[in-house]
Amino acid sequence: MAASSLLFSSQGIMSFHKTTMCYKDFRSSYLDVVCKQSGRSNFMCLARSRLLPNETLSKCEQVVKFSQKNDFLCRALKVENSSSFSTGKKFQLDDVIEAQQFDRDILSAIFEVARGMEKIEKNSLGSQILKGYLMATLFYEPSTRTRLSFESAMKRLGGEVLTTENAREFSSAAKGETLEDSIRTVEGYSDIIVMRHFESGAAKRAAATAAIPIINAGDGPGQHPTQALLDVYTIEREIGKLDGIRVALVGDLANGRTVRSLAYLLARYNDVKIYFVSPDAVKMKDDIKDYLTSKKVEWEESGDLMEVASKCDVLYQTRIQRERFGERIDLYEEARGKYIVDHHVLDVMQKHAVVMHPLPRLDEITVDVDGDPRAAYFRQAKNGLYIRMALLKLLLVGW
Amino acid sequence: MAASSLLFSSQGIMSFHKTTMCYKDFRSSYLDVVCKQSGRSNFMCLARSRLLPNETLSKCEQVVKFSQKNDFLCRALKVENSSSFSTGKKFQLDDVIEAQQFDRDILSAIFEVARGMEKIEKNSLGSQILKGYLMATLFYEPSTRTRLSFESAMKRLGGEVLTTENAREFSSAAKGETLEDSIRTVEGYSDIIVMRHFESGAAKRAAATAAIPIINAGDGPGQHPTQALLDVYTIEREIGKLDGIRVALVGDLANGRTVRSLAYLLARYNDVKIYFVSPDAVKMKDDIKDYLTSKKVEWEESGDLMEVASKCDVLYQTRIQRERFGERIDLYEEARGKYIVDHHVLDVMQKHAVVMHPLPRLDEITVDVDGDPRAAYFRQAKNGLYIRMALLKLLLVGW
Amino acid sequence: MAASSLLFSSQGIMSFHKTTMCYKDFRSSYLDVVCKQSGRSNFMCLARSRLLPNETLSKCEQVVKFSQKNDFLCRALKVENSSSFSTGKKFQLDDVIEAQQFDRDILSAIFEVARGMEKIEKNSLGSQILKGYLMATLFYEPSTRTRLSFESAMKRLGGEVLTTENAREFSSAAKGETLEDSIRTVEGYSDIIVMRHFESGAAKRAAATAAIPIINAGDGPGQHPTQALLDVYTIEREIGKLDGIRVALVGDLANGRTVRSLAYLLARYNDVKIYFVSPDAVKMKDDIKDYLTSKKVEWEESGDLMEVASKCDVLYQTRIQRERFGERIDLYEEARGKYIVDHHVLDVMQKHAVVMHPLPRLDEITVDVDGDPRAAYFRQAKNGLYIRMALLKLLLVGW
Repeated sequence: MAASSLLFSSQGIMSFHKTTMCYKDFRSSYLDVVCKQSGRSNFMCLARSRLLPNETLSKCEQVVKFSQKNDFLCRALKVENSSSFSTGKKFQLDDVIEAQQFDRDILSAIFEVARGMEKIEKNSLGSQILKGYLMATLFYEPSTRTRLSFESAMKRLGGEVLTTENAREFSSAAKGETLEDSIRTVEGYSDIIVMRHFESGAAKRAAATAAIPIINAGDGPGQHPTQALLDVYTIEREIGKLDGIRVALVGDLANGRTVRSLAYLLARYNDVKIYFVSPDAVKMKDDIKDYLTSKKVEWEESGDLMEVASKCDVLYQTRIQRERFGERIDLYEEARGKYIVDHHVLDVMQKHAVVMHPLPRLDEITVDVDGDPRAAYFRQAKNGLYIRMALLKLLLVGW
Repeated sequence: MAASSLLFSSQGIMSFHKTTMCYKDFRSSYLDVVCKQSGRSNFMCLARSRLLPNETLSKCEQVVKFSQKNDFLCRALKVENSSSFSTGKKFQLDDVIEAQQFDRDILSAIFEVARGMEKIEKNSLGSQILKGYLMATLFYEPSTRTRLSFESAMKRLGGEVLTTENAREFSSAAKGETLEDSIRTVEGYSDIIVMRHFESGAAKRAAATAAIPIINAGDGPGQHPTQALLDVYTIEREIGKLDGIRVALVGDLANGRTVRSLAYLLARYNDVKIYFVSPDAVKMKDDIKDYLTSKKVEWEESGDLMEVASKCDVLYQTRIQRERFGERIDLYEEARGKYIVDHHVLDVMQKHAVVMHPLPRLDEITVDVDGDPRAAYFRQAKNGLYIRMALLKLLLVGW
Repeated sequence: MAASSLLFSSQGIMSFHKTTMCYKDFRSSYLDVVCKQSGRSNFMCLARSRLLPNETLSKCEQVVKFSQKNDFLCRALKVENSSSFSTGKKFQLDDVIEAQQFDRDILSAIFEVARGMEKIEKNSLGSQILKGYLMATLFYEPSTRTRLSFESAMKRLGGEVLTTENAREFSSAAKGETLEDSIRTVEGYSDIIVMRHFESGAAKRAAATAAIPIINAGDGPGQHPTQALLDVYTIEREIGKLDGIRVALVGDLANGRTVRSLAYLLARYNDVKIYFVSPDAVKMKDDIKDYLTSKKVEWEESGDLMEVASKCDVLYQTRIQRERFGERIDLYEEARGKYIVDHHVLDVMQKHAVVMHPLPRLDEITVDVDGDPRAAYFRQAKNGLYIRMALLKLLLVGW
């Protein structure tokens, strides 16, 4: 949680849920924060003032945090330069929990910040935008790739990291602590928590507990929203647009949360056509198909990878996950060999089209594809860095 | 080890044990360090000069470290501004090994520094007090909570961290390195070692070997002194005093090193009364009772939690540890259900009293207590951060 | 990979393999980099400009990286102050893969930088030479000692670290990602990779893939080049010279990659004599003996440790590795007890001679040796820090 950007109406009275940031000039009080709360309840007021970078350097950010979800009154008496944080920013970002929370405008705004991050990563001695901020990576199951991406993002922005890849120890059977208690402890040591968990819905529970922002880095079969964001960002960077594109989703469409989240996000755009190409055992489920239909997104199932490859702008390949087939290794072997992206597939693809993959890959894309400029998957992985840099910035210091 | 603060008498000759810090002006030599040592013995002279923060910025701290515990002569010829590091500081802090090493005056001085840390944590861009310092967390058994707390403390002060949560690999049966050899290696890479070990006394052995400060972050059934310090600090912060308080220790009093250490420290104060409330299987042992009696601390055993709760200022609940009961799960279940802190207990507690717990908790405190302002356990966990910030500062740069 | 120093001939056209750094003034373009490449291939151009420390502070380093190993043309139109990076630097350091890559001149140049690192480690608030740089420690098998040494080196120079001690998860059987794919992902998140792997040759494969520098921190039975460098550096620091020295290699000479690499490097110097002292089961293999003979290095096998000890300048003891003996514990016990360095050995050693050991040690050096000034093994471990600081600096910012 955490409100990163607020619309202050001068003299107005507003009620905010969860953490709220109020900007206050150091020397004269332009903004008078009045907090009222009935009773003394379990109130952890972690006021934190920091010098902000750039144009807000003379401002002080005062975060008033509640460990309980108490609404409170914030009376803005005078706001100077409110334009600097309200110009066209129509939303606030509290937590990143699921792909569905992002509409087209938010995505566009995040992508703009991410493009700025590409410049920061490449051109500087290292940015100091997040200097003094601490991110905790609370991983209840290991995911080195995702963890490294987040930690790199934080450090490229000058922030610091607390790493916990064995967070299951927090809630071990022997000790039996609840997720909520663990979150309450860790939020006392950090400014933002990036969490990976083995249970669907864990990120939402964490966000409901924490007074600081939570980023879902994957919760079991549930969501992995930053992967979905980087996928859409990559399509825009590679193809140049999101409206009017044709996207082929290939491979394990039944179990891959990646392609499911991507389908949700593509439905935000106009004139998108989606092709589903998958072995029978792992077909896209009806809920997504129905959702796309309800949103008037054209979709089609196909068994002909070559034909689809020749028409699409994006060929999004995924790994067939062996563990989904249990004892039926024969079915697994049949499924995994069925739709391979190799140089024959490349031959029929359009010049401007790209091949994407969430990685890791086995042999569903052959290595001879790697050298082709249309092989976008390592650029895609790199885009994860920019998206995560953007999200960390937005959640911690706002727009 | 490491002497953080020294009393320099001009022209005097002093003998220090273990590491000694001598302050020396960069330009003119105000202090002449004469080191004499018989023979060449295994001498690791790790002289390190640093610019110190604040008023000592123009000074250079020169640490002369010995890996062997050789006393040496340090002749102070001229000392400028010695007042800045000798004003009323009557002790030096070398290592943090056990709760008993702290008397009332030291506790008071540490708590004063810890209160300053609360301000630093809340109000700044991030302190740079420990910039350039490296802390190694040498954990021979994992303890994510404690490790995160120390690492957060170090980073909040601008310091850096080397993390080793699998330190057992250092001394694995296969390789068989001694703790002493591991310490000698790690001290070459860091400025302070925070150590957790599975054997009682390990921290003391490490401190006897190391030329840099050692902090005991728990050594098996032995000590966990920073937990004891944060407990006492929390009582002072919540109740406003330490003399004349009534403290109920509840739960597993036989095995919990937390309550044992707390009892030792409470004996430093006047007119303290302690209530022991525990299932028969895990009663407080006689050594602590005898110690309290010898220190004229009033104590009482009680089986009536409600009555004790109505009288005490602090109700310190602990977890019944299942592993202590072996096969006798029936006894465990009986013990753990006996003294639960719930809203009925809260109802009889005084308005100003607080409930504490070292965490993690299971159901010995019900979640409906969390919302009450008297539930101090998450604030208590947060206080661990301030205490550890204070200790790191004191051990590394002195008062 | 990564070209750290380049010889720019004005107006000349040069072809570089792998990453190439071109220096470019910010204000006026002194150097025009023209990159030509046939086709669009999988081109990850990660241009990164940074302010460089010291004399090159007004320069901008532009790293053009290719994920594929495409040579490209770099046309230097005008170079100002090219002398600052070509003065006497006759080589460039791309990766650190094996001991054999270093000749006498390179060793000498690296050691000079390492000596400078001793001053930096001891005298400063913490250097900022590598500020803004990120090192990934990609460890496919844990080695806390080596990892800590590298991470300390990076942090002492102001750099940041991403830690992955469970990197096997990247290429787990379940997921099956290739090393090459993992490297391509991690290089997107960091500026240099320090890699430890369980397979011989892994570092070379990584370096062939990566566009950023790779340091081999041990690849199975293969190489551990930074250990070899620190060993030679220690001999020079302790004895004062490398030509004309007498070195005894003791213990497991058959399996220890350390002594094998050291033998290779000692062959770079003049008038060196090497004694091999080992149990029959673990004698030095013929390939090294033949190599030394071909390089005209005198060597001798001996079974008399006392006699060798009385003559040598360096007594390099190693651990007998139990795992090499399988079921034959009797042979292991016989081998390990045969050549112990104790105070009797010290008694016959020359005053200026030293005892070295790569650590960890068991009882092949008795603890009563530790106090003798000739016991150099902990100083040797510390030298690993300086060598690694030097290598990180050279690979990331050049000479």
